[in-house]
Amino acid sequence: MFEQVTVIGPGLLGASLVLAIQKRGLAKKIVIWARSEKTAEKARKKLPVDRVEQNLENSVRGSDFVIICTPVETIAAILKKIAPIVEEDSIVTDVGSVKASICREAENLFKSRSASFIGSHPMAGSEKSGMENADPNLFINRSCIVTSLAPKLELGTDKLLDFWAGLGMVAYRLGPKEHDQKMAHFSHLPHLVSSILSHSIRNHTEDAGQLSGQGLRDTIRISGGDPFLWTGILSENKDNLLDSLDKFEESLKLARSILTGQQRESLCSFLDQGAQFKKSLKGYE
Amino acid sequence: MFEQVTVIGPGLLGASLVLAIQKRGLAKKIVIWARSEKTAEKARKKLPVDRVEQNLENSVRGSDFVIICTPVETIAAILKKIAPIVEEDSIVTDVGSVKASICREAENLFKSRSASFIGSHPMAGSEKSGMENADPNLFINRSCIVTSLAPKLELGTDKLLDFWAGLGMVAYRLGPKEHDQKMAHFSHLPHLVSSILSHSIRNHTEDAGQLSGQGLRDTIRISGGDPFLWTGILSENKDNLLDSLDKFEESLKLARSILTGQQRESLCSFLDQGAQFKKSLKGYE
Repeated sequence: MFEQVTVIGPGLLGASLVLAIQKRGLAKKIVIWARSEKTAEKARKKLPVDRVEQNLENSVRGSDFVIICTPVETIAAILKKIAPIVEEDSIVTDVGSVKASICREAENLFKSRSASFIGSHPMAGSEKSGMENADPNLFINRSCIVTSLAPKLELGTDKLLDFWAGLGMVAYRLGPKEHDQKMAHFSHLPHLVSSILSHSIRNHTEDAGQLSGQGLRDTIRISGGDPFLWTGILSENKDNLLDSLDKFEESLKLARSILTGQQRESLCSFLDQGAQFKKSLKGYE
Repeated sequence: MFEQVTVIGPGLLGASLVLAIQKRGLAKKIVIWARSEKTAEKARKKLPVDRVEQNLENSVRGSDFVIICTPVETIAAILKKIAPIVEEDSIVTDVGSVKASICREAENLFKSRSASFIGSHPMAGSEKSGMENADPNLFINRSCIVTSLAPKLELGTDKLLDFWAGLGMVAYRLGPKEHDQKMAHFSHLPHLVSSILSHSIRNHTEDAGQLSGQGLRDTIRISGGDPFLWTGILSENKDNLLDSLDKFEESLKLARSILTGQQRESLCSFLDQGAQFKKSLKGYE
């Protein structure tokens, strides 16, 4: 258990973390940082926190654990501000979906400090966003990647893995670069593809509601995610994502040529390869 | 209520129809046709039917309502066989996902008959298949398209709309050609895209399970559908599907160029257009 945790940013993930930490008793005190007066006021009313701070320095004072829950492109700037002022031996993490650049940045910022930065990626998003959709059960049975570069972080990494496991997550370690490549395949490409699909049929709104089944709804669900957040994520992992997109386009070209050529057996085998992959994904549906 | 309904083919849809018709009392008697002895035997044991027939002619005798529930590429052949032998004034329908060619075919086959063919497309599939996954509630709140060409079919069309509504579906009329174009956008393109996505990341099975979140799982869910069934559907609607795929590729090219050029505002606006479309889809999630 931590003495005091600071959650920076009360969006969907930050607010859900507050609820989950409180519910499971993983910290004695919870402090939340919100930028605007309006959000701070809402957090005071809605979240079970000991303090709401609008000043970053005040928010991390006395905390042995800090979790940055702001959009991915703002994490570096926040790290720069708090790296010199977080408590000795504290652990700082984030919940960003892209990890390599932030881990490189953090290595510099923390090298002369006893506090450590270890990245996290709890894969527990939703196409919904904001404090009002916060859910203490958002993390249950979801995966969380914990990623660190330096061996001196062993102890903190174990503590962090325990923390996420304590929220009901299945927590893994993975190198930051490897994480970003794999997320390009398993998260960022699917998001982009889902968005491209929605984009390509966007002019058919008049009858889409009545004429679409569960298939369309599932396939485009994540395209409903916050465009601002996802602009940050996709831009941050652009190079890996473009590599994944190349593979996708290769498969697309193959599908098109099979379909155009009316090669039924090849089409069936193409679809079967996709179906086999889908079936290989064990776990929750 | 119908006197006797014949359901041709006890796959997921046929068997679910039997269960739903029986549960809601929409026909006094239910006959099912199964091709193989093994399936016929299973149907006898598992389904609440009055008769199981392996002979098509016997199966439609005495029925005022016939529903063809076999894979889309087999419907024409079955229609050819039963058109001359179905009862006078009976209604014949199917549950195929592609409608234009079957409606053209049926117009010829039924023009000298008092029985009518009116196509149906209950949008109630699942990535599961087979009698063992049959579910009487499969149809509830799902859309069903009823499609006919000739004005003489008005009465039968109303009766058919009532039938699907009686299963809890929201039933609409739509011309066969229009149906196929719209299904290319709303069903067949999403299926193909989902399959292409699974195909493009199929070599990453070793860690996909632990590293993928709900986003990937939703986006590729329908790629798990029966490859054989979907080969039939996609091939049958090839021309419309290739048109839809053109639009998808236009959107893809745009997304790639925005991403490559690091145009954050354009990316955000692209994602937002997709998100707006997703949000415009009212109804069940």
